[in-house]
Amino acid sequence: MSKKLTKRAEDYSKWYNELVVKADLAENSAVRGCMVIKPYGYAIWEKMQAELDKMFKETGHENAYFPLFVPKSLFEAEEKNAEGFAKECAIVTHYRLKNDPDNKGKLIVDPNAKLEEELIVRPTSEAIIWNTYKGWIQSYRDLPLLINQWANVVRWEMRTRLFLRTAEFLWQEGHTAHASKKEAIAESKQMQEVYATFAEKFMAMPVVKGAKSESERFAGAEETYTIEALMQDGKALQAGTSHFLGQNFAKAFDVKYTSKEGKQEYVWATSWGVSTRLIGGLIMTHSDDYGLVLPPKLAPIEVVIVPIYKSEEQLEAISEKVAVFVAAFKKKGISVKFDHRDTFRPGAKFAEYELKGVPVRIAIGARDLESNTVEVARRDTLEKQTISQDDVVTFVANLLEDIQENLFSRALLYRDAHTTEVTTFDEFKDAIANKGGFVSAHWDGTEETEDKIKEITKATIRCIPNDQKLEAGACVFSGKPSARKVLFAKAY
Amino acid sequence: MSKKLTKRAEDYSKWYNELVVKADLAENSAVRGCMVIKPYGYAIWEKMQAELDKMFKETGHENAYFPLFVPKSLFEAEEKNAEGFAKECAIVTHYRLKNDPDNKGKLIVDPNAKLEEELIVRPTSEAIIWNTYKGWIQSYRDLPLLINQWANVVRWEMRTRLFLRTAEFLWQEGHTAHASKKEAIAESKQMQEVYATFAEKFMAMPVVKGAKSESERFAGAEETYTIEALMQDGKALQAGTSHFLGQNFAKAFDVKYTSKEGKQEYVWATSWGVSTRLIGGLIMTHSDDYGLVLPPKLAPIEVVIVPIYKSEEQLEAISEKVAVFVAAFKKKGISVKFDHRDTFRPGAKFAEYELKGVPVRIAIGARDLESNTVEVARRDTLEKQTISQDDVVTFVANLLEDIQENLFSRALLYRDAHTTEVTTFDEFKDAIANKGGFVSAHWDGTEETEDKIKEITKATIRCIPNDQKLEAGACVFSGKPSARKVLFAKAY
Repeated sequence: MSKKLTKRAEDYSKWYNELVVKADLAENSAVRGCMVIKPYGYAIWEKMQAELDKMFKETGHENAYFPLFVPKSLFEAEEKNAEGFAKECAIVTHYRLKNDPDNKGKLIVDPNAKLEEELIVRPTSEAIIWNTYKGWIQSYRDLPLLINQWANVVRWEMRTRLFLRTAEFLWQEGHTAHASKKEAIAESKQMQEVYATFAEKFMAMPVVKGAKSESERFAGAEETYTIEALMQDGKALQAGTSHFLGQNFAKAFDVKYTSKEGKQEYVWATSWGVSTRLIGGLIMTHSDDYGLVLPPKLAPIEVVIVPIYKSEEQLEAISEKVAVFVAAFKKKGISVKFDHRDTFRPGAKFAEYELKGVPVRIAIGARDLESNTVEVARRDTLEKQTISQDDVVTFVANLLEDIQENLFSRALLYRDAHTTEVTTFDEFKDAIANKGGFVSAHWDGTEETEDKIKEITKATIRCIPNDQKLEAGACVFSGKPSARKVLFAKAY
Repeated sequence: MSKKLTKRAEDYSKWYNELVVKADLAENSAVRGCMVIKPYGYAIWEKMQAELDKMFKETGHENAYFPLFVPKSLFEAEEKNAEGFAKECAIVTHYRLKNDPDNKGKLIVDPNAKLEEELIVRPTSEAIIWNTYKGWIQSYRDLPLLINQWANVVRWEMRTRLFLRTAEFLWQEGHTAHASKKEAIAESKQMQEVYATFAEKFMAMPVVKGAKSESERFAGAEETYTIEALMQDGKALQAGTSHFLGQNFAKAFDVKYTSKEGKQEYVWATSWGVSTRLIGGLIMTHSDDYGLVLPPKLAPIEVVIVPIYKSEEQLEAISEKVAVFVAAFKKKGISVKFDHRDTFRPGAKFAEYELKGVPVRIAIGARDLESNTVEVARRDTLEKQTISQDDVVTFVANLLEDIQENLFSRALLYRDAHTTEVTTFDEFKDAIANKGGFVSAHWDGTEETEDKIKEITKATIRCIPNDQKLEAGACVFSGKPSARKVLFAKAY
């Protein structure tokens, strides 16, 4: 904790890794690519979960739980989905260890305990869930089926980074079944909207809503709706996706329903998910060279109070005052911590909470008792102000709202300043290479052009924005006709 | 849903399995021994989680998340623990599938993607967590470390039953580190107390608190504290355990701290857990031949309101009235559902909510509108009463408390009536074989006697109760001296 962070301008990637560890959010584990989410990081995830879960339930979804393992024969049933995940699967082949006869105290895999059919550790649960839905859906009365699962999943990624890309991660995955195509598309768009609202309202992270190009779609989806955020290094982050799956899984698992008219029809499907990756996005959207910056609505501690004292008597007098503030904050639903540890000096505490991104810090010393004041510092701008004790609770409550809004505006300003409209490929390359951020350009709609642009610039199509107006133009790369601009960026 | 349940007296085990499926709690999946927890069952688990999580946080614990996988070399580090779980582990050996060259569209495990070191899917997380704690604990200032994890675990059980014993299950596992033996023991006893309070106050399930005999201890523990409940078929259910782990894991993973006096000392440990098995206990404690019976404090729906109507106008008039009740119930924090589906008749709805154990059902028809009454039915006793609409909210609020208490008293009465003090082994065998329940008897303290009793009667020592008074006597089996009685029973 004592050593300073690398500066963002120096090495953004190093800054990120150091910050995650020093702010006590997460660390690498003994298992390749798997992280340990530490209590402070997990507390942020709990706050995210609580808000998202509420939003899911308000839109009619219920939670359930499906097995961690997918038998290989089910896994391969939907071919495109299987193909998309086959190369990054953890596979269980045995169910027992035995003593190593050559090495006392050590264990080996028991070759007699080989599974007849291998089990895939779920990289996503469409297969196991649709195999279950087959038993749940008979009639139109059973639809829509609106289910969400909070779970861990495993994707054997070769290059991992804390929160952003880990072999195991925590997420939620919604899986819904509908009687009509129209209803399923409406559901997947609704969940994109829910994700966007969560990102902007709670994470204070502006996002662009759009659809993925075919090559960037989820394996097995007919359409993937995405929310895309922009990080401070000019790279985009896919923050959440919602998929319209057509009848692909219903056909693969033979899930039909009897319609009102008595006909047998295949069911229409969606799936949608966000993961602990959001924490990576949260960090990279707001934090600075001093450490983490958290929006109040997701901060495990919104306000920290640090006493400055020289004697036990002074601490006692301060504590008495602070108890009143603490009660008042709690009454307003504001989470507050009074840090009266005597093992650390105030300066060390200030640095710690700065690093950990606590939105508001209140310092109160013996002199403040005399003058009936406290010092209030806001983490986002690092400004300090002296406030009367009589006003402090109202002031801080307003300040927290202010900080929440300021973080969003600041991030939006950054994104707008880093979204460039281009018409020529030279402008395109220049923007991507020198300015970073989103580049809005015409595209001829072919995978070939997409691949070539990626090869040359490393930028990919992040999305075809929902609100992009139709406007005829020429593809920035091929010059062929295009109906509207799409958004490119280098991405995480 | 239409077919009646098997009666408990006929076949208890069949009754249980049918109930779990028909009440929409859970079902078997395509993966051997793994269950799907359906939305209604999962909603009960969410209620349990919320209460337990609150209790853990109130006692100073924080949540965190550790990897699903344990490298074999870490798994085998604490030998007793490893030995205890080695025979029931799911083992990941490969990380990639590839196309089957002989079978288009099918996948096979890629032999080139074999892991250098096998990964064990956690059956419990002591190993991975203590390997992590090594990096977190240096000084006495880092202690105590009080962490809990909500997670899935896998134990490759050969004979499984929904909720009670499944290959994968959901649980919480607390893992704490302390500077002294005394503090660690106090922590493990405190968590036993927390579990007992939860079981009795929320589940309405009376439990005996006690310590396990050596042979029944958790693998790697120096002492296991347990809560034991009695099911309606006279079998005991171990409902939660809290382990004092001594310095076993600290030594296996070399976790030392510098004491205030500057000395290097091994850390003391505890771990404690409850799982989705609790739902099995909840079902078997209260339910009857008509279906599930739920204590109001854990019921996803506490009150259901069913309209009885012949015309749209009647339904409208009823709905108007019901809206007032619903608002009043919600204001009191009581979860209520107004089931106005027109696809089912009232009788079918009554049967459904009886099967699903909704504590209170209110029926309101056209005649009730005239007489300003409603019919209130309680699920625990199946009694019905006609109540004035003016009183219904207060009446039902009190009734819910009454049901919660009645369920506990009823279960306690049953347990007391099925706890038998014996002095001879003939009495012992008779009680176990013909009456069931707990048998309190003197035991000489040897594993040999324990084994023989188990062999002859199938009963095991459930616990040495915390509140058992010291009283010299002769072992019920061997006649050797014994200091106090212990509790035996056949168990799940």
